[in-house]
Amino acid sequence: MWVRMKKLINDPDDIVDEMLDGIVATHPDRFRRLPDTQVLVRDDAPLDGKVGVVSGGGSGHEPAHAGYVGDGMLDGAAAGDVFSSPTADEFEELIEACDSGEGVLAVVKNYEGDVMNFETAIELVEMEGTDVETVVVNDDVAVEDSLYTSGRRGVCGTILVHKAAGAKAAEGADLKEVQRVGQKVIDNVGTMGMALTSCVTPEKGEPTFDLGEDEIELGIGIHGEPGTERTDIMRADEITEELTTAVLDDLDLDEGQEVVTIVNGMGGTPQMELFVVNRRLQELLDDHGLETWDAWVGDYMTSLDMAGCSVTICAVDEELKELLSAPVNTPALTAP
Amino acid sequence: MWVRMKKLINDPDDIVDEMLDGIVATHPDRFRRLPDTQVLVRDDAPLDGKVGVVSGGGSGHEPAHAGYVGDGMLDGAAAGDVFSSPTADEFEELIEACDSGEGVLAVVKNYEGDVMNFETAIELVEMEGTDVETVVVNDDVAVEDSLYTSGRRGVCGTILVHKAAGAKAAEGADLKEVQRVGQKVIDNVGTMGMALTSCVTPEKGEPTFDLGEDEIELGIGIHGEPGTERTDIMRADEITEELTTAVLDDLDLDEGQEVVTIVNGMGGTPQMELFVVNRRLQELLDDHGLETWDAWVGDYMTSLDMAGCSVTICAVDEELKELLSAPVNTPALTAP
Repeated sequence: MWVRMKKLINDPDDIVDEMLDGIVATHPDRFRRLPDTQVLVRDDAPLDGKVGVVSGGGSGHEPAHAGYVGDGMLDGAAAGDVFSSPTADEFEELIEACDSGEGVLAVVKNYEGDVMNFETAIELVEMEGTDVETVVVNDDVAVEDSLYTSGRRGVCGTILVHKAAGAKAAEGADLKEVQRVGQKVIDNVGTMGMALTSCVTPEKGEPTFDLGEDEIELGIGIHGEPGTERTDIMRADEITEELTTAVLDDLDLDEGQEVVTIVNGMGGTPQMELFVVNRRLQELLDDHGLETWDAWVGDYMTSLDMAGCSVTICAVDEELKELLSAPVNTPALTAP
Repeated sequence: MWVRMKKLINDPDDIVDEMLDGIVATHPDRFRRLPDTQVLVRDDAPLDGKVGVVSGGGSGHEPAHAGYVGDGMLDGAAAGDVFSSPTADEFEELIEACDSGEGVLAVVKNYEGDVMNFETAIELVEMEGTDVETVVVNDDVAVEDSLYTSGRRGVCGTILVHKAAGAKAAEGADLKEVQRVGQKVIDNVGTMGMALTSCVTPEKGEPTFDLGEDEIELGIGIHGEPGTERTDIMRADEITEELTTAVLDDLDLDEGQEVVTIVNGMGGTPQMELFVVNRRLQELLDDHGLETWDAWVGDYMTSLDMAGCSVTICAVDEELKELLSAPVNTPALTAP
């Protein structure tokens, strides 16, 4: 079935498959797609003597997660259908492909499907003797117990978990240490998002939720799940204040604390607007006596073509600064 | 005046100013904004003994051009108002700030305003003894003599010119050599774009052009200028074939030729869809007996929030491969 709509798409049933082939085609020497799966791993996985770091989840959040596969970050990622968890079988194949014998850290966004299927997969691989540890990312400060979630949702902060854990694994640390730094990010990060428009899933071809001409939604999830408040559209500065305040209230940081920030686009937001948000975010942090150590702006964890953004703030110490600035070479994130 | 619309924006009159501050805020140690201008330069510009490489143009094409300022690429960039050329005065200040005495290469996209204002600026700085050479990028194969252009338009291929010229300058080459490699890219690159939707300028708050629910426009310019054909929406594979064929017909490459490709998002297009286009693009190149040496996918030269994409193909030899893969460290492009 080909739904006639304004997307660069062939058949909605094929979009994840074709996207994955399109990702591999950017770096055919660096990626391997496991046969008959939606799992991408480094072509050289598993890496001798290195703990594997893997993640995965529904598609529609690109570049998460396949875009973060490479040196210094993930060894592999499983892609579910759009906004659907990968299967337990796919998580199992992913973990097995990335285990060199040193064990594997699974970075799981807190959604019921992902958590359940990763758990099933882990039970299976552990029976075969593979060590697996898990960290569950739940950085979204907007709501407890959302549409697909018990507890808080895992959103853009996940990228910092990938980065820190990936860097620690690249150093040759053992599984417990890699897990520890992943959890350390989780313990220190918060995110709050907002939508100007709904996303449109390829399958349905219509908005996931209705938002009036002059309305925005604060606290939106990355699948278009309801947020905390639907309100009249505000100026960018006011929106930035709402998002930033919500995160800072949750984190409760001491004055002088160093932070890394992400202004993340939801997929349909031009960079011009993200930079306008970043400008105000940095002013607000300065007003709060916080020190921005690094500021990221771009599309890191998206929601298909949704227009909107999220603000992520993560408190960093010397260890996290070293890990977050360590060399990385992936399609979506590169640092010398 | 605050237009009530679905953008992350304060006052449309302030959006470029606030965007530039937001860019500087990502790397305050790396950028300097020239006082009372919309010009960003490297904080350490001019670099002793190095030819300066500069560019600029209307805003709304982010990350072009400020996102490409940094090691191995541009020394500075002037940002005009949205879809308007920077002034001659701003180009003059840009060139002066980036001249260490070794001269400056100006990379100009072929739009009448940019060409005219850069020319005026160059006359002024040459009177002060600064050597300037220019390359004019005109990679858009869609149309001759468009709304703002005599000859072909300069679009996404400009990024490859920035990269090659910037790498050559970083090597310590002289001005003529830096110009030569910039022109070499121009002589070997072609681009064709398409729009699923119009962009909406902050000032007007309404679509720049009308496109029906089931229509797309092929050959669109990056300001929403008319293209070659308005047609019913097609499958992504067919759209990719239209774009790729137009570029290949223009370039007329020999079998076995190595190329670098860019699938460029127009600002409102999620990465998922760009990867679907890249998949088909690579198949088509393979069918034509061409060898993809490197494949880029992402938002490199945008048109505000327009949904759509462009396909760029550039024939490369050993020299261009070396320059295009040389180390670079800018907000929008980083390679180790």
